[in-house]
Amino acid sequence: MSGWLRIVGLGPGAEALVTPEVTAVLAEATDVVGYIPYVARVAERPGLTLHASDNRVEIDRSRHALEMAADGHRVVVVSSGDPGVFAMASAVFETVDSGPRAWRDLDIQVLPGITAMLAAAARAGAPLGHDFCCINLSDNLKPWPLIERRLRLAAQADFAMAFYNPRSKSRPEGFEKTLQILREECEPERLILFARAVSRPDEALRIAHLAEATPDMADMQTVVLVGSSRTRLIERDGAPIVYTPRFTPE
Amino acid sequence: MSGWLRIVGLGPGAEALVTPEVTAVLAEATDVVGYIPYVARVAERPGLTLHASDNRVEIDRSRHALEMAADGHRVVVVSSGDPGVFAMASAVFETVDSGPRAWRDLDIQVLPGITAMLAAAARAGAPLGHDFCCINLSDNLKPWPLIERRLRLAAQADFAMAFYNPRSKSRPEGFEKTLQILREECEPERLILFARAVSRPDEALRIAHLAEATPDMADMQTVVLVGSSRTRLIERDGAPIVYTPRFTPE
Repeated sequence: MSGWLRIVGLGPGAEALVTPEVTAVLAEATDVVGYIPYVARVAERPGLTLHASDNRVEIDRSRHALEMAADGHRVVVVSSGDPGVFAMASAVFETVDSGPRAWRDLDIQVLPGITAMLAAAARAGAPLGHDFCCINLSDNLKPWPLIERRLRLAAQADFAMAFYNPRSKSRPEGFEKTLQILREECEPERLILFARAVSRPDEALRIAHLAEATPDMADMQTVVLVGSSRTRLIERDGAPIVYTPRFTPE
Repeated sequence: MSGWLRIVGLGPGAEALVTPEVTAVLAEATDVVGYIPYVARVAERPGLTLHASDNRVEIDRSRHALEMAADGHRVVVVSSGDPGVFAMASAVFETVDSGPRAWRDLDIQVLPGITAMLAAAARAGAPLGHDFCCINLSDNLKPWPLIERRLRLAAQADFAMAFYNPRSKSRPEGFEKTLQILREECEPERLILFARAVSRPDEALRIAHLAEATPDMADMQTVVLVGSSRTRLIERDGAPIVYTPRFTPE
């Protein structure tokens, strides 16, 4: 028995954005583990067991995947987007780090995927075409003052920004505070994009100036992109193009 | 004649990391435009003209691509990695922005790809598993004081960091200064990864503590990842795993 574990990214939703590398390991797997909607994207077939679990049980799910791999199964842990960007890879390695020594020497690999911010940026043009940062706005896993500090320093650095998990039903006030902080640090004309369900049938992209942005423009399915001070809009007949130029003058 | 322009990412090198979406548009293209080594990754076939050009002619290349699309060609501009991350998408939109009005209404789309930092992070474990930033260290297109300011603010925000274009033959001193700034802002044990040619036959990954890092560990083929203060190393029989935990305590 030589089991293995692959932690893979399924991309933002469309099949055409799943890498051939990920498709190939799914074809060899005996077990697929992940959050219900992501496991639902994997086709059933004989010899493959799908283990779908609810949100917020990342450590239980990781332990289950590691135990199966140690038992000789060929296990794929699925995330949407890229597994290394606010997804399952860190959870699995946290579990390895605190688990039995034998788990460290399992055959474990992470296979990258198209993360939501890159799919959203591509749809809009090139808003992340210059230096940028990527912040998870959920305060489940870190204290709010750290989020606020990062937002202020990112604005002072004039990074473009991508926000994951901007707004949940249980914590709607976080994104409202985020917009308030951005208004204190940035000019009112700053461009902000709300990209929902990119590459899926219900995709929606909305562009606003910071002054007009409201908390309800985002939900947990949305990735939010904020331009730098140099990000520009090109008006045209269809949806406008948003891009950040490569050049910054002295 | 209905020409179009697609600005696509070929990923870091391996064919298995090219998305099916990109493979499909390459199959429909009449013309492929890009920097010599990236165009060399596209297979020749009847009906397809390859237009390879040297580095640092991004605006000329963009203009050529837009002119051909306006003339009814089906044009693909290729970048390595993701076209929106320090690659061709911003250059094309700069050219559209300053060009004839008709270019704005061309059928232009950006197709995302696996950018180098995500491929490198996957190889190492999950070093970007928490908030992070992404900085182009080349001072061709921005003044050095802005790079220094961003590095210091990013360290103060305790972001993990990814650096593109860390070091060129013509400007070797920039990365030396970067390491010096990081040493002033971060503890000596901070983890730093040098990932060269990820997914290609000559791939090399090197992990060091900041105190031991030297400028010659990077060249222009390298993406450099710097952990946050919480990034951890898991020792094991093979290459160690580097990951950033999801949780930050109060």
